[in-house]
Amino acid sequence: MNSVSMPHVWLNGHVLPADSAFLSTNDRGFLLADGVFETVRVQGSRPLWLDDHLARLRRGAAAFSISVPFTDDVLRAAVDNLLRCEAHEAAALRITLTRGSTALRGLWNRAEVTSATLLMTVAGRLPLPAQRLVVARSTRRNDFSPLSRMKSLNYGDNLLARKEALERGATDALLMNTRDNFACACVGNVFFRVDGIWSTPPEAEGVLPGLARQRLLRLLPAIERPMPACDLERVEAALVSNSLDCAVVTHLDGRALAFADKPEACTALYADEPFEGQR
Amino acid sequence: MNSVSMPHVWLNGHVLPADSAFLSTNDRGFLLADGVFETVRVQGSRPLWLDDHLARLRRGAAAFSISVPFTDDVLRAAVDNLLRCEAHEAAALRITLTRGSTALRGLWNRAEVTSATLLMTVAGRLPLPAQRLVVARSTRRNDFSPLSRMKSLNYGDNLLARKEALERGATDALLMNTRDNFACACVGNVFFRVDGIWSTPPEAEGVLPGLARQRLLRLLPAIERPMPACDLERVEAALVSNSLDCAVVTHLDGRALAFADKPEACTALYADEPFEGQR
Repeated sequence: MNSVSMPHVWLNGHVLPADSAFLSTNDRGFLLADGVFETVRVQGSRPLWLDDHLARLRRGAAAFSISVPFTDDVLRAAVDNLLRCEAHEAAALRITLTRGSTALRGLWNRAEVTSATLLMTVAGRLPLPAQRLVVARSTRRNDFSPLSRMKSLNYGDNLLARKEALERGATDALLMNTRDNFACACVGNVFFRVDGIWSTPPEAEGVLPGLARQRLLRLLPAIERPMPACDLERVEAALVSNSLDCAVVTHLDGRALAFADKPEACTALYADEPFEGQR
Repeated sequence: MNSVSMPHVWLNGHVLPADSAFLSTNDRGFLLADGVFETVRVQGSRPLWLDDHLARLRRGAAAFSISVPFTDDVLRAAVDNLLRCEAHEAAALRITLTRGSTALRGLWNRAEVTSATLLMTVAGRLPLPAQRLVVARSTRRNDFSPLSRMKSLNYGDNLLARKEALERGATDALLMNTRDNFACACVGNVFFRVDGIWSTPPEAEGVLPGLARQRLLRLLPAIERPMPACDLERVEAALVSNSLDCAVVTHLDGRALAFADKPEACTALYADEPFEGQR
């Protein structure tokens, strides 16, 4: 059992050894980020919130007009199959969907029928460490774009902001949107506590409707409201959440936060629903 | 000779038959759009403006902190090699550079050394047809992001806007930026003629510094100035340009333009410099 790279992947209907699974050089996921993905928490060899992940994958596919060439039943069986090959206590399953290979060059040709690429991989998962966040200066979240509310392959802004954060000695960056409000961190949604009240920016601010976010809204509990960048100094506590984990923020733009204990909701979160298949 | 798909590609130092060239399922270009590309006009089997394309590729690579594992001399020889295999009067050469395969999952890990993927492909090139543009409603160009001024793999917004344009019966979309000004079309830069004066939006508006754009500024000639969306009705003529071709715009948001003849500069453009290797 290797905690870094897994020996099997699921690619377009088949479980394959990872070193014999390859992509076409014409895959539009590679050429133009023409696709979407999901990252699923695996615990005790079972996927968490899989139905919700598949539903979001299909919403993203529809936005890009990509036909998903498999039913949810087939995809659920594929996940089971892959996880049987890769028994793992704590892992992350990634499901990537692209428009597939194209014979024609160029941006888009509706006349061309392509067969989507669907790839599932499993990798070891480590806990998300406590976060030291800086406010990204290099880029912002584009709340004018539907991509800001989707898990598309277009991760360039997140990569640039993360690069900046690491160069500035932080673990991750807070991304502002074009309205001078905070939207999210590079790796997940953010929650802020101000005057004892937890909140998280609404989707319209350029925010992915995270599956952990949705549950934390109920569990913390938290409200949805815009978070003006100028209110940063009022933040008493903060969290970063994604489908894999939830972490406390210990430092915000260099300032140590007074409340840096992990709320119980952060751990309850990933146990608050029965696993897939046990319902 | 096949005008749609070419039988050879250049991948990481080797010319290979396209059907035996594959990418790893862990390539970060595929997983996170972690890379950049160039599209080079090939005429008479020679690449146009290759030095400029390689310089821009290197600037993009630096922004992403991707080391280019080949010198310009090696890359120029690779282009020659590939074009010798693929004799073609009118073609497009695409050079794609990504961070390469990663052993670790997640957004970014500076400690991990990856070996970049460098792929070159050639495909037949058709003239860019006269353009009927609509103003995209689905998304906008993020002028807050350095990606808006780079040729990165993050083409999601362009894909969504192009999809919308095709659905609305147009050939392409005009993208507004977050300041209510026009930035570009999905496939290239835009030039507008208002009161007899040609202009194109400055880079700061969220505009790729196109190689054809740079030459058209001199040849038309044109000035750089922001183009407010509310001035759309004042546009008498418009052009779309990229490194492969330049086309006139015949319709803007449903309105037929009075001046829809292709200026001479549009053809002079691609002949205004000696080919690579002939200097």
